[in-house]
Amino acid sequence: MTEYLDPRSGATYPLDAPRWCGDDGAPLMLTPMPGIGRDAIARDRRSIWRYAAALPFAPESPITLGEGCTPLVPARIGGGSALLKCEWFMPSGSFKDRGASVMLSLLRAQGIDHVLEDSSGNGGAAIATYAAAGGMRAKILVPDSTSAAKTVQSCAAGAGIQLTPGSRQACADEALRQGRAREDGIFYASHNWHPFFLQGTKTLAYELWEDLGFRAPDNVIVPCGAGSNVLGCGIGFLELLRAGEITRLPRIFAAQPAHCAPIARAFLGLDPVPARPTIAEGTAIAEPLRTAECLGVFAESEGGAVMLEEAEIAAAALSLARSGFYVEPTCAQAAAAFEKLLAAGTIREGETTVIVLTGTGLKATPRFAEMLGVAL
Amino acid sequence: MTEYLDPRSGATYPLDAPRWCGDDGAPLMLTPMPGIGRDAIARDRRSIWRYAAALPFAPESPITLGEGCTPLVPARIGGGSALLKCEWFMPSGSFKDRGASVMLSLLRAQGIDHVLEDSSGNGGAAIATYAAAGGMRAKILVPDSTSAAKTVQSCAAGAGIQLTPGSRQACADEALRQGRAREDGIFYASHNWHPFFLQGTKTLAYELWEDLGFRAPDNVIVPCGAGSNVLGCGIGFLELLRAGEITRLPRIFAAQPAHCAPIARAFLGLDPVPARPTIAEGTAIAEPLRTAECLGVFAESEGGAVMLEEAEIAAAALSLARSGFYVEPTCAQAAAAFEKLLAAGTIREGETTVIVLTGTGLKATPRFAEMLGVAL
Repeated sequence: MTEYLDPRSGATYPLDAPRWCGDDGAPLMLTPMPGIGRDAIARDRRSIWRYAAALPFAPESPITLGEGCTPLVPARIGGGSALLKCEWFMPSGSFKDRGASVMLSLLRAQGIDHVLEDSSGNGGAAIATYAAAGGMRAKILVPDSTSAAKTVQSCAAGAGIQLTPGSRQACADEALRQGRAREDGIFYASHNWHPFFLQGTKTLAYELWEDLGFRAPDNVIVPCGAGSNVLGCGIGFLELLRAGEITRLPRIFAAQPAHCAPIARAFLGLDPVPARPTIAEGTAIAEPLRTAECLGVFAESEGGAVMLEEAEIAAAALSLARSGFYVEPTCAQAAAAFEKLLAAGTIREGETTVIVLTGTGLKATPRFAEMLGVAL
Repeated sequence: MTEYLDPRSGATYPLDAPRWCGDDGAPLMLTPMPGIGRDAIARDRRSIWRYAAALPFAPESPITLGEGCTPLVPARIGGGSALLKCEWFMPSGSFKDRGASVMLSLLRAQGIDHVLEDSSGNGGAAIATYAAAGGMRAKILVPDSTSAAKTVQSCAAGAGIQLTPGSRQACADEALRQGRAREDGIFYASHNWHPFFLQGTKTLAYELWEDLGFRAPDNVIVPCGAGSNVLGCGIGFLELLRAGEITRLPRIFAAQPAHCAPIARAFLGLDPVPARPTIAEGTAIAEPLRTAECLGVFAESEGGAVMLEEAEIAAAALSLARSGFYVEPTCAQAAAAFEKLLAAGTIREGETTVIVLTGTGLKATPRFAEMLGVAL
């Protein structure tokens, strides 16, 4: 029987009531699940819901917009061969749709109809999109410095946008406060906090396994902010191992901007330093909630974390675009990390390496204009 | 043996040399092809190249980025049931990637390595993207009034952008002039002119047929500017009919903005009027090349064309976004057309109707801001 789990205290809570944190306010995961085999795939569904049997429970009517089933395209990256998982072929333009589809579907089945989120980026757009698709109300908190262009997509989906004074952290704090207070009965459906979100991102592991003819790749490299792809891959591939579908985990590597790399620094044994601005803005999470769990995934999978300088991230973004892959600098750093890992001999040519490209470049027009020296 | 065909004079030209117009400058199609059955699908390919056997010839190495295999999502639209074909789940964010992938793959196989295009929109972005992926050079002509934001994507792909003075028509005229002159050996690979482009858009018909368990829908509604989806569907479904895979064509309907509806007006027997600006900017083609061929598709399929007012287009775009489908106003008009056809009794509830949503709303941020009353 799956339950909510506080991985640090070991406390568990029954799954039948909505809950986004422990009684003491701690972030939660779920207790380990057995995973599914290939026969449990609903092959007639062209979406992540083909793996519905792997979820903690199956809602009667999932909120789905055809998310997932993204292509895995071979490419040469910096002298090596890799497979690019094109996660921006999604309803709202990023991988976050996997998490939003599953989280909101499960929450709606638990009786939630009004959700709170804090994000001016892909997370907010995904929550707004799936709330709209599911007939749920959504309120998104963003720092008051956020440009209107970044919230148009969420506004169009009908989400209420609340500007909060101060920094991104102040915005997260205010969301937490409102979430704890459950003002107007709203439920804090934070893509960073809620463990159901990771149940959505874990479908990436199942999908890669199916893409590759039911085997695991040797390596998976993901861009990493709060770590939802690190953890999603960790959870999903561990389930496949438990189910006897694969014989070992792929090595899971996280790419972080050197300007804001708390998880990579912890992995590398470096002292924390204050965060600086980065063009990889989607991964600029100064205080991630689940650093320990990410480190667990690196250890268990024999993977690791890589820090990228701003110039390396920009060069990777431009180089991908010049090859036809127009993606956000945030995820281009995964390609830059591949080059570094290859050069260091950590990853070798001939291995099957997946680079996860999480978001469309269309969300980063001003960044690209800047990098190209074009005035907007 | 497939050849280039001038459908009005009946002149044909052999397919073994690159050619984008007849000797007299007329636009070309290809001679009819036999189509393929379900056994000829390359089921291991997750892209439009699963239908490669239906192309006039198969290049040894197609330029592919995982285009196609888009979801078909059921939705309620204006009181009726429809299937939304989500064509913005694509490398460059629009259905034009189907055409660009096939056209540039075939041209490269014919020895072309430098292409010319005129478009400030989805067509230009798709050509730039696939030229980059295929190691080809691309030059895109756009009117000098084009905002830089609209060409950042093409710039990032490495295309050369040439600003031309005057209107969109003046830009097309200049592209034609350069194309005819073959300056610097450049080849005019216009998404509006080249018949290979329609060989790419025809894969939509094959895909819908496969999506629906190898049958044709009753109706397909597409947004229509120059008509590449009208013609692509016409060609593809006719091939399936010839191959004996379907027993009748779906009715093919085109949606055009009333402000610029030359094809719809011709279908409805209305006199031409000067074009006015429209928020459905991707379909603002005042002088389409292949009006007669589009009318042929309507006649043969018993479909037709619908004109939409600006307010109807805006309402449809906002309504789709409120349901989680964040798409350009240009294609939202296909949903508006569905409502009209349903209200008129032309399309009936209970029929299988596909609405083709061709481009992401992320390319129309200023339009959405305007419609929502948000200052950018």
